[in-house]
Amino acid sequence: MDRAALTAFLARDFSQVAGDFAVERADEAGVTLRLRAGEQHLRPGGTVSGPAMFALADVAFYLAILSRIGPVALAVTTNASIDFMRKPAAGCDLLAEARVLKPGRVLAVGDVMIFSEGQPEPVARAGMTYSIPPR
Amino acid sequence: MDRAALTAFLARDFSQVAGDFAVERADEAGVTLRLRAGEQHLRPGGTVSGPAMFALADVAFYLAILSRIGPVALAVTTNASIDFMRKPAAGCDLLAEARVLKPGRVLAVGDVMIFSEGQPEPVARAGMTYSIPPR
Amino acid sequence: MDRAALTAFLARDFSQVAGDFAVERADEAGVTLRLRAGEQHLRPGGTVSGPAMFALADVAFYLAILSRIGPVALAVTTNASIDFMRKPAAGCDLLAEARVLKPGRVLAVGDVMIFSEGQPEPVARAGMTYSIPPR
Amino acid sequence: MDRAALTAFLARDFSQVAGDFAVERADEAGVTLRLRAGEQHLRPGGTVSGPAMFALADVAFYLAILSRIGPVALAVTTNASIDFMRKPAAGCDLLAEARVLKPGRVLAVGDVMIFSEGQPEPVARAGMTYSIPPR
Repeated sequence: MDRAALTAFLARDFSQVAGDFAVERADEAGVTLRLRAGEQHLRPGGTVSGPAMFALADVAFYLAILSRIGPVALAVTTNASIDFMRKPAAGCDLLAEARVLKPGRVLAVGDVMIFSEGQPEPVARAGMTYSIPPR
Repeated sequence: MDRAALTAFLARDFSQVAGDFAVERADEAGVTLRLRAGEQHLRPGGTVSGPAMFALADVAFYLAILSRIGPVALAVTTNASIDFMRKPAAGCDLLAEARVLKPGRVLAVGDVMIFSEGQPEPVARAGMTYSIPPR
Repeated sequence: MDRAALTAFLARDFSQVAGDFAVERADEAGVTLRLRAGEQHLRPGGTVSGPAMFALADVAFYLAILSRIGPVALAVTTNASIDFMRKPAAGCDLLAEARVLKPGRVLAVGDVMIFSEGQPEPVARAGMTYSIPPR
Repeated sequence: MDRAALTAFLARDFSQVAGDFAVERADEAGVTLRLRAGEQHLRPGGTVSGPAMFALADVAFYLAILSRIGPVALAVTTNASIDFMRKPAAGCDLLAEARVLKPGRVLAVGDVMIFSEGQPEPVARAGMTYSIPPR
């Protein structure tokens, strides 16, 4: 699935949150997903909250799987380990770069790096595992 | 901080999401926090989403720290590792049981077990680390 | 598999390291495994090293799976997330308490708490996932 | 600290295991550490064991910290989350590429990717956090 196909998938299957995200890139190397930072993502102080970053990592990695193996409904996260390293810049979108390191038949494993837009240092890093349902 | 103090803290410092949660218990052993499952927490299929469970674990553990060391603003999550083990029951609140295993001066470490209300088997389990700001 | 069966399994299938460990308990609630702390497990300062604690957690959780589902060769660790919370007491054995929270058909998920013998506070805590081969 | 300084540090402070490892590279981008796979690292089947990979990731990341901030005794691992993705190739050394993503004053956070020598696909991936003692 390419960028347009992932965008359409997001709009159809995740309509509740599709407006929060934009697929910036989808190629062999992985997927870059933007979080359009809005009021509902902020914690006191105006920076994006941990749960909003978790959601960004989770969706970005899901799309990275789909870009590799095609539309798979019912794939579910089984493990996520996330390090929050820096406070995101206030008033900034976040960009998540997700890649699949092992596109297995049963488990897909990969990682996600999250940046405040325009900043070189990552704000968070996650290792993710999804369980892929049998065909 | 006891149950009433934690509830007041939540209402004041997390007013955006305080209505989603209820402190059920707060004692020496830890804190039990309820997620009042609403539309905004559900994924396709009607079960609570991963990011909503992450938010529940994160808030529950934060309150467990406060119950041990008193009101500390600016404590932040540095690491969370979460295993999603079972699909939550549809139409059910979730209950998170959080405990602090190490109430350190610099880092607080603990874990959280999440259940669908009334079900004996956990739906998720998380290890959490918070950084505590110097006094 | 009970304590005697697990001990025999360890001696046969992990003969290289079986002498390092002793099964203290194996029942419905899980497995307690002792690490007989020796020179090869210590880091400078005389306390048990991180990798030795990792090995203890890994073997303890493997035995906890076997105690639930019987002898399964080729089960492999897919994820481990470990928090090192306190320095182990010097000159002390370690005890790991492992339990299976989800004895799934494909994935077994659980956790392990590690103590210095005779100390009430845990030194480390791990979340573990094993992949179970198809029968 | 450069490659020669890290090698000397390893020989002096980790004399028990220094012979297992070789520093292949140490520069701005991070450290590459070789595990000279020997009998003591193998599990049944002849591939490197999980605990040996954990030890490799742990030492590689420690050296990556030292290469950035100089010789710091007493830095300790506080969290490690490791995904084992593929069985290592039998009879092969492993190479770990470690980088520091956040060289903080209190916590250093980064990741490690482990390969069988000569293979393009990683066998394991770890997120690591070390606590840095006050100067």
